[in-house]
Amino acid sequence: MRIDGRKNDQVRATKITRGYTKYAEGSVLIEVGDTKVICTASIEDKVPPFLKGQGEGWITAEYNMLPRSTGTRKVRDISRLKIDGRTMEIQRLIGRALRSVMDLKALGEKTIWIDCDVIQADGGTRTTSITGAFVALVDAVNKLHKEKPFDVYPIRKFVSATSVGILNEEKILDLCYEEDSKAKVDMNIIATDEGEFIEIQGTGEESPFSRNDLNDLLDLAQKGIKQMVQIQKEALKMDSLWIGTGGK
Amino acid sequence: MRIDGRKNDQVRATKITRGYTKYAEGSVLIEVGDTKVICTASIEDKVPPFLKGQGEGWITAEYNMLPRSTGTRKVRDISRLKIDGRTMEIQRLIGRALRSVMDLKALGEKTIWIDCDVIQADGGTRTTSITGAFVALVDAVNKLHKEKPFDVYPIRKFVSATSVGILNEEKILDLCYEEDSKAKVDMNIIATDEGEFIEIQGTGEESPFSRNDLNDLLDLAQKGIKQMVQIQKEALKMDSLWIGTGGK
Amino acid sequence: MRIDGRKNDQVRATKITRGYTKYAEGSVLIEVGDTKVICTASIEDKVPPFLKGQGEGWITAEYNMLPRSTGTRKVRDISRLKIDGRTMEIQRLIGRALRSVMDLKALGEKTIWIDCDVIQADGGTRTTSITGAFVALVDAVNKLHKEKPFDVYPIRKFVSATSVGILNEEKILDLCYEEDSKAKVDMNIIATDEGEFIEIQGTGEESPFSRNDLNDLLDLAQKGIKQMVQIQKEALKMDSLWIGTGGK
Amino acid sequence: MRIDGRKNDQVRATKITRGYTKYAEGSVLIEVGDTKVICTASIEDKVPPFLKGQGEGWITAEYNMLPRSTGTRKVRDISRLKIDGRTMEIQRLIGRALRSVMDLKALGEKTIWIDCDVIQADGGTRTTSITGAFVALVDAVNKLHKEKPFDVYPIRKFVSATSVGILNEEKILDLCYEEDSKAKVDMNIIATDEGEFIEIQGTGEESPFSRNDLNDLLDLAQKGIKQMVQIQKEALKMDSLWIGTGGK
Amino acid sequence: MRIDGRKNDQVRATKITRGYTKYAEGSVLIEVGDTKVICTASIEDKVPPFLKGQGEGWITAEYNMLPRSTGTRKVRDISRLKIDGRTMEIQRLIGRALRSVMDLKALGEKTIWIDCDVIQADGGTRTTSITGAFVALVDAVNKLHKEKPFDVYPIRKFVSATSVGILNEEKILDLCYEEDSKAKVDMNIIATDEGEFIEIQGTGEESPFSRNDLNDLLDLAQKGIKQMVQIQKEALKMDSLWIGTGGK
Amino acid sequence: MRIDGRKNDQVRATKITRGYTKYAEGSVLIEVGDTKVICTASIEDKVPPFLKGQGEGWITAEYNMLPRSTGTRKVRDISRLKIDGRTMEIQRLIGRALRSVMDLKALGEKTIWIDCDVIQADGGTRTTSITGAFVALVDAVNKLHKEKPFDVYPIRKFVSATSVGILNEEKILDLCYEEDSKAKVDMNIIATDEGEFIEIQGTGEESPFSRNDLNDLLDLAQKGIKQMVQIQKEALKMDSLWIGTGGK
Repeated sequence: MRIDGRKNDQVRATKITRGYTKYAEGSVLIEVGDTKVICTASIEDKVPPFLKGQGEGWITAEYNMLPRSTGTRKVRDISRLKIDGRTMEIQRLIGRALRSVMDLKALGEKTIWIDCDVIQADGGTRTTSITGAFVALVDAVNKLHKEKPFDVYPIRKFVSATSVGILNEEKILDLCYEEDSKAKVDMNIIATDEGEFIEIQGTGEESPFSRNDLNDLLDLAQKGIKQMVQIQKEALKMDSLWIGTGGK
Repeated sequence: MRIDGRKNDQVRATKITRGYTKYAEGSVLIEVGDTKVICTASIEDKVPPFLKGQGEGWITAEYNMLPRSTGTRKVRDISRLKIDGRTMEIQRLIGRALRSVMDLKALGEKTIWIDCDVIQADGGTRTTSITGAFVALVDAVNKLHKEKPFDVYPIRKFVSATSVGILNEEKILDLCYEEDSKAKVDMNIIATDEGEFIEIQGTGEESPFSRNDLNDLLDLAQKGIKQMVQIQKEALKMDSLWIGTGGK
Repeated sequence: MRIDGRKNDQVRATKITRGYTKYAEGSVLIEVGDTKVICTASIEDKVPPFLKGQGEGWITAEYNMLPRSTGTRKVRDISRLKIDGRTMEIQRLIGRALRSVMDLKALGEKTIWIDCDVIQADGGTRTTSITGAFVALVDAVNKLHKEKPFDVYPIRKFVSATSVGILNEEKILDLCYEEDSKAKVDMNIIATDEGEFIEIQGTGEESPFSRNDLNDLLDLAQKGIKQMVQIQKEALKMDSLWIGTGGK
Repeated sequence: MRIDGRKNDQVRATKITRGYTKYAEGSVLIEVGDTKVICTASIEDKVPPFLKGQGEGWITAEYNMLPRSTGTRKVRDISRLKIDGRTMEIQRLIGRALRSVMDLKALGEKTIWIDCDVIQADGGTRTTSITGAFVALVDAVNKLHKEKPFDVYPIRKFVSATSVGILNEEKILDLCYEEDSKAKVDMNIIATDEGEFIEIQGTGEESPFSRNDLNDLLDLAQKGIKQMVQIQKEALKMDSLWIGTGGK
Repeated sequence: MRIDGRKNDQVRATKITRGYTKYAEGSVLIEVGDTKVICTASIEDKVPPFLKGQGEGWITAEYNMLPRSTGTRKVRDISRLKIDGRTMEIQRLIGRALRSVMDLKALGEKTIWIDCDVIQADGGTRTTSITGAFVALVDAVNKLHKEKPFDVYPIRKFVSATSVGILNEEKILDLCYEEDSKAKVDMNIIATDEGEFIEIQGTGEESPFSRNDLNDLLDLAQKGIKQMVQIQKEALKMDSLWIGTGGK
Repeated sequence: MRIDGRKNDQVRATKITRGYTKYAEGSVLIEVGDTKVICTASIEDKVPPFLKGQGEGWITAEYNMLPRSTGTRKVRDISRLKIDGRTMEIQRLIGRALRSVMDLKALGEKTIWIDCDVIQADGGTRTTSITGAFVALVDAVNKLHKEKPFDVYPIRKFVSATSVGILNEEKILDLCYEEDSKAKVDMNIIATDEGEFIEIQGTGEESPFSRNDLNDLLDLAQKGIKQMVQIQKEALKMDSLWIGTGGK
C-alpha cells in the first residue's frame, strides 16, 4: 500500500477547471492530488524572429513555482537574476511536448504562450503542467477556430503526461512528492492518446536500472497516460471533437 | 450609476479564503470583485543582515502578477532581468503597511515573508494585496503564538486598504480597472481599524486636485476602510481576538 | 527651535543655479540646505515604443545618488545589477510630477529625459529633485520654443515639492536628514503654483496619524510650496513668462 | 549507407587524449568524429552550502560551446546575461550522470567541478561530454587516491553515453549534426559498463514513436555504449583498475 | 595655434576645490578646462576577501559619467545591466595608479574607495580623475593620520596624469575633446613628482607611430606632469608635507 | 638565466596551427610556450548600428579564458553575470590592435568577429591572442578575397604583440606567468612589421620606472616583435602576399 493509500497503478484524484481566469484565451486550473497548477494559453499575433515570414506558428512555454508552493519558501528567480536550471528544463519540455502534436503551418503566424504557474507542489508538477496546458491550448485554439475556422484544424492529437518510478522495489504510477523524493528511479512519460511516446525522460541518479525495469515502468506509464487522456476528454467534452480531424 | 452597478461609496464584493494552500504558515485567497490575489505569509528563523543581533524581527513583502492576470500578457520580470518599477513600488508599500502595525521587538528575531501573487487583476491589486496579506500575517503569527505564546502578542492593530478616485467629476470608492484607467485622480489609502492613516498616496497625474476634493476623497476612503476591516474580522473570527491586546 | 535653528514653518536656504553644465538643454544645480542635486533635461527626437505615431511626447526621469552623497558610502546599483527600490520609486515620482503639468500633445513627438543626480544628500532629495528638475525642464522647453515656437506652449503650470512631518509632536516643514530619520510621520507634497495637489505621499510607518494631523500637515505643506514656487520664479525670471499661457 | 559512410550501428571514430592541459587534475580532449570537447575535472576542498558538514562530496558540471564551435557564430551567454536553456539542460545532465556512479560519501567533503567546453560541434556534444568527462573524473580521483588512498575508492562504475535516432525510417547510432537535424526521433542514452541505464531522454518532437521503435533504439544504444566504454577503458588502461573495486 | 588658443605644450586652466562635499573623508572637485570631475575618497574598515588577515590595505576606484556630462545623453550602465568597457578600463587604471604610490602595509587593513564621477566631459576625464583623486586620497589619509598617526605615513609619492597626442602632425599636450577626437595618436601618461612613469598607454588606432614620435610625446608629457603636480601641491599646501617622508 | 632557461631577449617556442577548427572563416591555435589560445575570425554580413549605411566595416573581439586554463579554476563570467574587468580590457585591446591595420572602408559593410579563447594560460595571453588573431583574420579576409576580390585588399600591415618587463633588475622579453607575477614593471607592445607602435601599455604598479628603463624595454620589445612577425609570415606563407599591397 502506498503512502496515500493508492494502488501502484493508480493516478491521483485529478480535476481540471476550465475558464479559471477571465483574460487568457485558455485558462485552466489542474489539480492532481495536492499538486495545483494554473495553466494559461495566450495568443499573440506574431512569431519569434527565427520564424518570421515562414507562414508558420510557434508555441512557447514558461513555468514557474510561486515562492510558497513548496514546503520551504523558494526565492524568486528575479531576486537571483537567474532562471533556475530545473525551471528552464521544465519549460523547454512543456514547449516541446505541445509543439509535437501541433500542425504549426496550419496555425499560421501566431505564437501561443503557455504559462504554467504552480500554486501548490506535491510531486509531478511538470507532467501536471503538460496535461493541464494541453487543455488550455485546446481552448485557445478553439477560440480562434470559432472566430474564423482554420483551413486545417491545427491540433493533431491529445498529449498527456505522467510519472512512474521505483520505490522500495515497487514500480508505482504518478508519484507524489514524498514518494518522488525517495524513489531510486524516476521517469516522466509524455504520450499521445494513441499511446505513442512524445518524450521519455528516465533518471536513475540514485541507482541505474535494467532493461526489464524499464519495460515494467513503460507498461505502467501507458496505463497512466490512458487515464489522464480520459480526464482531459471529460473536461473538454464536445470541445475536443476537432482534435485530429483537421477541423472538418 | 457606476460601470458595474455599484453606488459611489460601495466596495466590490469581497471574499477571503483562509488556508488556501497547504504549506505556508498563512495562506489566503482574497477576491475583491474580479481582482484575485494569493497572499502567503512564511516564517523564517533569521533576520536580514542589517538587523542581526538586535532582538527584533522583520516583515518583507514581494508582489508579482502572473503573466496572464491582465488583459494582454505581461512579460515576466526574469525575462527582462529587471523588476518592474511599479512592482517594486507596490511591494515596498505592502511591507511598510504591515510593519506599521507590528511590534517587531515582540516578534523577535524572525522574518515574515509576505508573497502577494496576483492571479487576476481588475484594479486595486495593491490595496487588495494589503488587505489579504494582513489576514495571512495574522494566521502565521497565531501559528507561532499557539505553539509558544509570545510575551507580547506582536500585532497591534488591523490594517486594511482601499482606493478612491475622481471619475467624471464623481468621487468613487474602490475603483475597478476600467474606472481606474479613466480616473483623473487616484488615491490609495491604508489605515487601521481605528481610522488612523498609515499611508496615503494620491496622484493627480491627469489633473491636479484641490484641498476640497482631497477632503471628500478621504471621507469616502474612511468609509471603505471600515468595510474592509469588517470583512477581515469576519474572515478571522476568533482568530483576531489577540490583535491589539498584547496577547493577554 | 529646530536642530538647525529654523522655525517649524520655514524652508531651508535654497539656491538654484541655471546653466550648471554646458551640454544639457536644461541644467540646474539646486541646493536646499545641504541637499545638492544636479538636474538636467535632455531632449531626444523620438518617443518610447508605446507612444510611437501618436503625435504625443513623453517625459521620463532617472534619479541617482553619487556613492558618497551620503554619510556612509552607498554601493552603486550597477555593482549589484539591481536598481534600488527607493531609487525606482523616486524616479517614477519625478516623472509623474513633471508630466502632470505638461501638455504632451503640444510637446509633440519628443522625449525629455530628466536626470537628477544627488551630489550631497541631507534629507528631501526627492522633493528637491522635483523642484530643480522643473527649472531644468523650463530651460529645455524654452530652448525649443526659441528655436521654433510651439503652436501651444507645453508647460501649463509650475510644479514644486516639499516635505512635512511630525517630530516630537511638532509639525515641521522641509525636514533635513536628521529630522527625517526621527520623524514619526513623513509626507511629501507635490503641488502647482495655484496650490493644487499633484501628488501626496504620507507615511506613518512608525505610527499612524489622524485626520487632524493630516490637515495640519497639509496647511504647512501649502505654505512651503508657495515659498518654493517663489524661488523657482526668481531663478527663471522672464523665462517663466510663457508658463500657463499657451505661449501667446 | 549513412551520410559519412558508416553502418547504422557504427559509432564515429573516437579518440580520447588524456592530460590535454596542464593545470586541471583531470584534463581530456575527446573527439567523436568532428565533435571535439575539452573536459576537465577540478578538485575543490569544500562543498556547496546545502551539503556543508554532512561528510559528503559533490560533482557539478558546466558545459559551454565556444562561439565558433558551430556553423554560425553563437553569441556568448555573458553578452545576453542569460545561460542558454539548452546549455543549462546539458550541464545538469552531465552532473547527474557522473554523480550516479560516484560514492559521494567515500569522496568526502570535496567538490569536483567538471567543465566541458565544446571546441567543435558536429552532433552529440552532450553524450561526448559525458564520455570524456568520465575519463577526466577518473584521472582527478586517481590523483587524490595516489596522494592519499581513499578508504573506499569512490567511483563505482563506468559511465558512457551515446545517441540513437530514426532518420528516413532507419534506426541509426551516434548521429552526426546533419543526421540529428533531420531525424524525427532523437534519443540520448547514458549507461554503465554493465549495460544498466542511468538516464534515457527520448524526444519525438517531429513525430511520436511507438513502443517497438523504442525497443529497437534501445538495442542499438546498448551496442553503442559497449563500444564507448571499451574506448574509455583503452584510454585509461591500468588507471581504470580501481573502478568498482572500492579501491582494494 | 590650438583650437582653444593654447600653445602645444600648455595644459588647460586647472582648478582643484577641496572639501567639495561634506561626508567623504576626501572630496575634491577638479576642473581641467571644461572637464569637471568630483573625486571622493571613502575609508572602510575592512579589506576585500583576497586580502583578509594579511595586515595590508587596498585602494579601489570606480568611475562614472553622469548621463549628460557629454554632448549626447549616455544611457546609464544600470539600464543596460552592463558596465561600459571603457568605464571598466578607466576605473582599473585609476586604482592601479593610486596603489602604485601607496605603502599598503603601512595603511593597514583598510580599504579606500575612490569615486570619480564626471559632471562634464571635455577630454582627458581619466587623467583628470587621477590627478583629482590623488588630492582626495591625501585628504582622506591625512584625516586618519591626524586622528591617530600611522607608524609609517603611507603615501610615498605624488601621482599625476596628463595626455599627449599627435594632431595634424603637431604634438600637443592635454587634449580637449575636439582635439582628442581628431588626433591620430593618443597617449595617457601617469607619473610621479620625480618624473618616473607609473603607467603609459599610447594608442595609434588611426595610425601607428614611430619611436621618434614616442620620444617627443614623452618629453611633452613630462612637462605636463610637472605642471599638474605643481597644481596639486598648491591645492594641498601644508597638507602635502608628509608625502614621501614616512610621516616623521 | 631565466626560469625556463631562456636568454633575456628570447621569445618562447611559438607554434601557429591554421585551420584548427572547421567552421570559422579563420581558425588558429597559437602556442607561445605553454600559453595556448584558439583564435577564430568569423564574418558577418552586417555592421553594428553606429556604422549602418556608412559603407564601412568593423572588427570586434571577444576574449575568454576556459575555467581551468589557469592554476586555480576561474568562475565563468556568466555565473557572476559580469564580465571580468581584465577580460573587458583585453578584448578592447585586441579589437583596437586589429582595426589599426585594416582599411575598414575597403572591407565594406561586414563585421569580423574575433574570438580568442584561452585553453591554457602561462603568461602573455593578451599578446599571444593578438599575434594569433591576426593570422585568423588574414585567413578570413583571404577567404572573402578568393571568392570575390576586394577592390582594395583591406589588410595594410602585419600586427604582432609581445611583452617585456623588469624582473630582478633584468630586462626580459616575453614573460611567462611566473616571471610576470614577480616583475616590477610589465609592458605590452603591439607593433607592425615595420616596427611602428600600435599600442604601448606599460605599468609599474609595483614600482615606477625611468625614461632609461623604458628605452631599454622598447629596444627589447622591438626585437621580440620582429621574431613574432617572422613566425606569422612562416605560418601564412604565400597567403600573406597581399598584405599591404592593396591586393594588386
